[in-house]
Amino acid sequence: MDQRLKAATIFDFGQWMADHLAGVERSLECWVSVKPAASAGHGAPADLIAAMRYAVLDGGKRLRPLLVLAAHEAAASGMEGTSDCGHGVVTGDDAVLRAACAVEIIHAYSLVHDDMPCMDNDVLRRGKPTVHVKFGEAQALLAGDALQALAFELLTPEFGMPDALQARLCRLLAQAAGSAGMAGGQAIDLASVGAKLTESQLREMHRLKTGALLQASVLMGAAFAELPPTALNAMSAYGAAIGLAFQVVDDILDVTSDSVTLGKTAGKDANQDKPTYVSVLGLERSGRYAQELLEQALNALERGGLRNTQALRGLANMVVRRTS
Amino acid sequence: MDQRLKAATIFDFGQWMADHLAGVERSLECWVSVKPAASAGHGAPADLIAAMRYAVLDGGKRLRPLLVLAAHEAAASGMEGTSDCGHGVVTGDDAVLRAACAVEIIHAYSLVHDDMPCMDNDVLRRGKPTVHVKFGEAQALLAGDALQALAFELLTPEFGMPDALQARLCRLLAQAAGSAGMAGGQAIDLASVGAKLTESQLREMHRLKTGALLQASVLMGAAFAELPPTALNAMSAYGAAIGLAFQVVDDILDVTSDSVTLGKTAGKDANQDKPTYVSVLGLERSGRYAQELLEQALNALERGGLRNTQALRGLANMVVRRTS
Repeated sequence: MDQRLKAATIFDFGQWMADHLAGVERSLECWVSVKPAASAGHGAPADLIAAMRYAVLDGGKRLRPLLVLAAHEAAASGMEGTSDCGHGVVTGDDAVLRAACAVEIIHAYSLVHDDMPCMDNDVLRRGKPTVHVKFGEAQALLAGDALQALAFELLTPEFGMPDALQARLCRLLAQAAGSAGMAGGQAIDLASVGAKLTESQLREMHRLKTGALLQASVLMGAAFAELPPTALNAMSAYGAAIGLAFQVVDDILDVTSDSVTLGKTAGKDANQDKPTYVSVLGLERSGRYAQELLEQALNALERGGLRNTQALRGLANMVVRRTS
Repeated sequence: MDQRLKAATIFDFGQWMADHLAGVERSLECWVSVKPAASAGHGAPADLIAAMRYAVLDGGKRLRPLLVLAAHEAAASGMEGTSDCGHGVVTGDDAVLRAACAVEIIHAYSLVHDDMPCMDNDVLRRGKPTVHVKFGEAQALLAGDALQALAFELLTPEFGMPDALQARLCRLLAQAAGSAGMAGGQAIDLASVGAKLTESQLREMHRLKTGALLQASVLMGAAFAELPPTALNAMSAYGAAIGLAFQVVDDILDVTSDSVTLGKTAGKDANQDKPTYVSVLGLERSGRYAQELLEQALNALERGGLRNTQALRGLANMVVRRTS
């Protein structure tokens, strides 16, 4: 049997998830610690590190790092119809895990700040007290700030990662995290409390707030190879579609699930009078929209001509079919 | 008359300051705006940008960017006894100003977060209401977060700056801003309220809280050239000495000056029962210590064998002799 066909046939997404999650957890455990990366002899205070670890470790779906790893696999195995070897891949596992963890760390910092009393004032996250409840507001603020810096530190090790890759990853992450990305989306979210948004305004908010970082995860994984524009555009379209799908499903779960299943406060958006897909489109149309976005994501991958996209497809399905 | 001698003789620090400050202000004005860097068509919300601009523009001594520019000049003009031409300098004005502004933007974000009610709860900064007073706490939190991301975005333009330089600058800035730098120092500061610190504990706190970013400013300017270890160590020692001197003088001014002169609340540390150089060493010994640190900084430059250090020397003097 052709080895490639066999590999495709027996791809076990559950096993892929388990293996890659383990790698992500080990790496986060190692990098969010007293001596982050190669900092020259400085000692970080133990209580700050404790708050940072609490924010990052032991919880979370790790969707963003898994997207980085899956996109890297797809990019690294090259295009259909080309030879089997890696295609312009410039570095090994350590660098990919750095990229994966950097995105997760940005995500984790945003949750810490988002939960603070001056923002969403939430006390429950991943089934545990939020960081400011556990460590105090000032420490939560600093832990979030230090986590953002750590993400960029992880992407710029002194050795073992080509400069061009470091620069490209930092650029993608900084753009996705900043005022024209995640932080910008949160500012729109702030301003939208009690407001009536059209579907396109809602989409713009979520494209920035959640979509930018999810899409950046895909593009950061893809950045490890020199892909032709068709493939890169496909990855980008895939990332945009699942970024939006993620939020639509989030809005659906906010009304159909409960706090124990979600690990965070259910019904929060409605209580805070925030516009959601459910409030704008209704529950049924939101469900159909999520399904359409899933198909868009899968079609984009199809068009891109990349060979090894099983994990990306598995993640897209997971995003839409999840129950928490 | 030897041109070099003439240039050294007529160096006018006031003029240097005025010229370089103008460049920094123009660049900040340009880069902290609706379309930061090369973000691909995303629109950042106007109120967030307004809070970011308020935090960064129209105020501040701009010490950090001036240190970047002065260190760049020293590094770029090479070592004494070598030929006159630039020494391994890899890029032009735009890149240096990006580095200068990135450091200032990190500094500005730290002030925004530091002033928030859960931290120092300060209402006055640079003679104006603090960001959370003017824009609300949530917007202040997000503006700080977005500014941190913007700093890294500025350091990673798509064109016009070598990858190796981008990576090096991001590394220096991330380390200086994070848990083993500025954010770490602020966490120690939090924990030290009401505590009795020894002089060495106080120094460690300030080495992280203020020193790390000031030293990074010098090293980022130096990163534009490939300096020999002697020169790089000298720059590093200079940065460490003025970083500490800055804080000692800050502590002195906190008790000897008034809020109008300082543009921020005077006597704040004593009121908050925070340990300071004045509380640990007394006023007179603190003054002598600042003078010693100035001499250390100037001696380090002397030892480094760099040619064009007038601006660095001028800034060191300014740090210690300032009255606000």
